[in-house]
Amino acid sequence: MNLAGLKKISIVGVGLIGGSFGMAVKQAFPAVQITGIGRSAERLCAAQNLGAVDAVSTDLEAGVRDADLVYVATPVGIELDFIRRMAPALKPGAVVTDAGSTKARICRGADGVPGMRFIGGHPMAGSESAGVESASPNLFRGAAYVVTPTEKTHPDDLILMKRLAESLGARAIELDPETHDRCAAVISHLPHLMAAALVSLVKERAGETPEILEMVAGSFRDMTRVAESSSELWRDIFISNDACIKSAAADFLNALTSGLNKICAGDAEGIRDWFKAAGETRKSILPGSRD
Amino acid sequence: MNLAGLKKISIVGVGLIGGSFGMAVKQAFPAVQITGIGRSAERLCAAQNLGAVDAVSTDLEAGVRDADLVYVATPVGIELDFIRRMAPALKPGAVVTDAGSTKARICRGADGVPGMRFIGGHPMAGSESAGVESASPNLFRGAAYVVTPTEKTHPDDLILMKRLAESLGARAIELDPETHDRCAAVISHLPHLMAAALVSLVKERAGETPEILEMVAGSFRDMTRVAESSSELWRDIFISNDACIKSAAADFLNALTSGLNKICAGDAEGIRDWFKAAGETRKSILPGSRD
Repeated sequence: MNLAGLKKISIVGVGLIGGSFGMAVKQAFPAVQITGIGRSAERLCAAQNLGAVDAVSTDLEAGVRDADLVYVATPVGIELDFIRRMAPALKPGAVVTDAGSTKARICRGADGVPGMRFIGGHPMAGSESAGVESASPNLFRGAAYVVTPTEKTHPDDLILMKRLAESLGARAIELDPETHDRCAAVISHLPHLMAAALVSLVKERAGETPEILEMVAGSFRDMTRVAESSSELWRDIFISNDACIKSAAADFLNALTSGLNKICAGDAEGIRDWFKAAGETRKSILPGSRD
Repeated sequence: MNLAGLKKISIVGVGLIGGSFGMAVKQAFPAVQITGIGRSAERLCAAQNLGAVDAVSTDLEAGVRDADLVYVATPVGIELDFIRRMAPALKPGAVVTDAGSTKARICRGADGVPGMRFIGGHPMAGSESAGVESASPNLFRGAAYVVTPTEKTHPDDLILMKRLAESLGARAIELDPETHDRCAAVISHLPHLMAAALVSLVKERAGETPEILEMVAGSFRDMTRVAESSSELWRDIFISNDACIKSAAADFLNALTSGLNKICAGDAEGIRDWFKAAGETRKSILPGSRD
């Protein structure tokens, strides 16, 4: 199947990501019919009113039956259950993809479902705001969209997903699921853990010096913003990528200790150069972005 | 001396903080005469053109001679040298304050300078942008302004500095220098170190997986923004608060490990509750601010 063959898409879980995907597809391909599937009729209704989907269903099997592509955008912890349950109802040749923040367990699990044509994906976009009310057709624009084929992936499905991601304004990146998870642990999962740990530390210190709470400034605000993300979504992400996060935390600690040792040794030149190199690296990764 | 007695103010170091202080004073007290003191005539000229100071001097002694208040806003590492050098030139009753990000070494050092009337301060405002070009009369508005009296501080000077800070729109907070440094280590200095360490880690991982650089998204961008701060300024801050930063890093590591252990034990409920509590704490510290 190619992009032109996409007539009907079903989205399982119409929240921030699923809703934004629906809106973006409607904008790029107005003729595509989109069905939103979920457990809450009220939330599905909200998604339909916002123009994210054309039709809705609370019945998974009925909702995916005619779909050329099924887009699974539920919390990571329940994705595989949905994928297994929908398998018998899919029409031949239907492709299933997902938007989960961790990939190895889902992709390897889906590969084990008989008759399933699955290719994982992870749009590196999001927000600490959840829900279809925060959805936007432009959420993926300029963002990385990682597609994670395995040796079981049909080559056509890889091409389809890359082209679809690019049609929505994203940059398609191809990585195997395990490499994706190692990278995501460093640039997203560990930062969320760090944010929550820093907040915990400030709360603990406030026990002896309440004034600390009034002193919080820009760096604390920036570094802890994502601590307000959904604890249900992040519980699933953390648990499903535990080994990679542990390894990322160990390497982060080494990097932190490297800087700290220079400070405690009074190595003024060493700490200046170390900090400066980090600033220059960031500038090269995010050119023109100091915000 | 009270606020009404402030006729002449000299600012040593007219960069982001010194320049913003000058602009804010001009706005609140248009009659006050402000002299900018620095080593670069070019930078002083820029500050004068931007309206941050009325007159300029590259001669420290001449520049402070008539001042009722001297505001030291140089990098932390050279503050004490300026304070010692200006002491003989000050007129009787002149008050000296500073804006350094670390307080114990400077306040205790200044207390040891014969004849010096010193009270430390730290406006918890700033930016990863340096230089008077980024200065604004509103930089202190709504920000915390910590004043750090010691047992040698004249009570009038404490009142003066609190009122002055409030006149510029800041919230005055009183802490002893050592307590200030412990708090600042947690909410500002450690976060800067964490930002640089996270960038270093991503750079290291990019050696094996270059795609990681294209995957960076919101949480990485937020958490590393301050890594682009001035390496000269931060070298001084890190070195002058080494013990507090080390202790903050150790406590941060404990908090991080506490979350990580729940993840690695597969304790779904534990990690959800831990993350949720952090989000709620942040919300109570920064109400209404998810950005």
